[in-house]
Amino acid sequence: MDDKERKELTINLGHGSGGIMTRDLLDKVIFSTFDNPLLNKKHDGSIVKFETEIAISTDSFVVSPIFFKGGNIGELAVNGTVNDVAMCGAVPKYLSLAFIVEEGLKMDEFIRIVHSVKRAADESGVQIITGDTKVVERGKGDKIFINTTGIGAVHPRAKIDADNIKAGDRIIINGNIAQHGMAIMSEREGLEFESAIKSDTTNINHLVSKLLDTFGEDIHLFRDPTRGGMASVLSEIASDIGLGIKIFEKDFPLEKQVAAACEILGLDPLYVANEGVFISIVDEKIADDFLSFMQKDPKGENAKCVGYITKEHPHKVVMQSFIGGTRMVSPLIGEQLPRIC
Amino acid sequence: MDDKERKELTINLGHGSGGIMTRDLLDKVIFSTFDNPLLNKKHDGSIVKFETEIAISTDSFVVSPIFFKGGNIGELAVNGTVNDVAMCGAVPKYLSLAFIVEEGLKMDEFIRIVHSVKRAADESGVQIITGDTKVVERGKGDKIFINTTGIGAVHPRAKIDADNIKAGDRIIINGNIAQHGMAIMSEREGLEFESAIKSDTTNINHLVSKLLDTFGEDIHLFRDPTRGGMASVLSEIASDIGLGIKIFEKDFPLEKQVAAACEILGLDPLYVANEGVFISIVDEKIADDFLSFMQKDPKGENAKCVGYITKEHPHKVVMQSFIGGTRMVSPLIGEQLPRIC
Repeated sequence: MDDKERKELTINLGHGSGGIMTRDLLDKVIFSTFDNPLLNKKHDGSIVKFETEIAISTDSFVVSPIFFKGGNIGELAVNGTVNDVAMCGAVPKYLSLAFIVEEGLKMDEFIRIVHSVKRAADESGVQIITGDTKVVERGKGDKIFINTTGIGAVHPRAKIDADNIKAGDRIIINGNIAQHGMAIMSEREGLEFESAIKSDTTNINHLVSKLLDTFGEDIHLFRDPTRGGMASVLSEIASDIGLGIKIFEKDFPLEKQVAAACEILGLDPLYVANEGVFISIVDEKIADDFLSFMQKDPKGENAKCVGYITKEHPHKVVMQSFIGGTRMVSPLIGEQLPRIC
Repeated sequence: MDDKERKELTINLGHGSGGIMTRDLLDKVIFSTFDNPLLNKKHDGSIVKFETEIAISTDSFVVSPIFFKGGNIGELAVNGTVNDVAMCGAVPKYLSLAFIVEEGLKMDEFIRIVHSVKRAADESGVQIITGDTKVVERGKGDKIFINTTGIGAVHPRAKIDADNIKAGDRIIINGNIAQHGMAIMSEREGLEFESAIKSDTTNINHLVSKLLDTFGEDIHLFRDPTRGGMASVLSEIASDIGLGIKIFEKDFPLEKQVAAACEILGLDPLYVANEGVFISIVDEKIADDFLSFMQKDPKGENAKCVGYITKEHPHKVVMQSFIGGTRMVSPLIGEQLPRIC
């Protein structure tokens, strides 16, 4: 970035979207500045070695509204980070918890959030072990922001590394996409459906551990498509490996109601944020077993294989659409829905 | 806290002051909810055991203004967390870094902050290994907030535990107090002095490591008096141990200019926030050696012994004032200066 750009650009919502502008900002500013092998992996979290390897991941949560159908910012802040640690192939154990509260937040709301952090932490089996609370003046924040940083012990059989991905690997998703994004969006737009669309915020670390116990090194990558959705995450993976990704629109599990809401709002569900959803890229020889194993778990019962890795179109994601044509899938450009998590 | 209180109270600035209201909020809401032995230590960070013990600490930084004499929010966010990890008796190694940026922040300011994070990280010898960037709408934040979470390896000779404190232990401070708070305050109030009052933001982890190398288990506690100042931190320690603390007002190292600024604004320097300052509570048998060792280090050249631990007045801090009388020292009540760090 040259000096003129530096002087003239401002940070805007696109920089926080998880899409192409975020990536651009990270490449130009963050990675180039800190430039170390651990950070350069550009995974959701980093693995560091003390005696045993531990995985660390951090996330700030600024979702608005702070209470929504299916959850609130408190459990989101736990599940989000727990899942990021799990995505590193680790068993989450400890979380830090830091609040930035806007003056005037109701004590009752604060307590409800704290209790829901506690519940979510218990469910995922992590302990909150350190924290911080800051308060800013009215109008200088927005009710509450939460940062969590999670630490976990890397699973002894985990070999999660984009470098292990090879042609033929299958891409398996554990459940319905676009739930979280559409829940927040419906809440904000005041959309009413027969039954409310609920966020899918949940932990997936126990399922991930069982998958690692069973399939170990044949799992090459885990990723959770939160901000920016499936399309952004798959594009990011494709751009990091020397291979292409082929996906099939019809195979993405999607609730009818969520599909309808996307249609009303003119949104492509592949770009909508998810919370309790993750993709696994696995060796083709275990793909069928992996899929049926997952389908037996409550958090994987809608699991589907949605595509594969190919030597064709390296660095690109190509999708076969419902009507049979194929098109390139790009990462999210700009910002679809700010403050989704 | 009963239901009526819950419904009627709101979070206000006092809850984030680091003083008595913060403690109250933590006791009533956070500790009672999470209730686990690690969190219950109520130290700045927590020590967890994997194979080797590691220390973890988190802090969000919301200082305003984000640039001030002697530093900016970026280096503050590194030094603050690095120092908290050091206060656990650990050697900081890794940091996570999470930004919440308000839409409209100048790219140039963002980059300056990022670069200053990098510089501070290099100086303290830590690596940023994972991070997050969120952007909120204009008016829903205040330029930039930063969370850092730090992890370090516990020093092999560290036995930092308030339970080890005993009557006769000496309280040693490494340098001038009240610098950071008065730098921020002068900046906000537009006060001018002969030379500007500068924040003392700096890392103290290298000095701490050397102290641990040399004095090991004879160091019973480290603490850095940031928000709430010396008075709040000493009160907190006293309330946690079954002993009293006696301090001497005349022995606290304090720059003339800072003392003058405090006087003008009617502030007691013992309640003003510090950054590069820490206290050590050490066995009396090593106190003299400890003090002269510290005074040879650039970050300890103004070190002083400011008091001792006593069996008298358990749970209380008593100060002998300049004029010779004694008075009780209470923790900060309410909020002296919001968004100091």
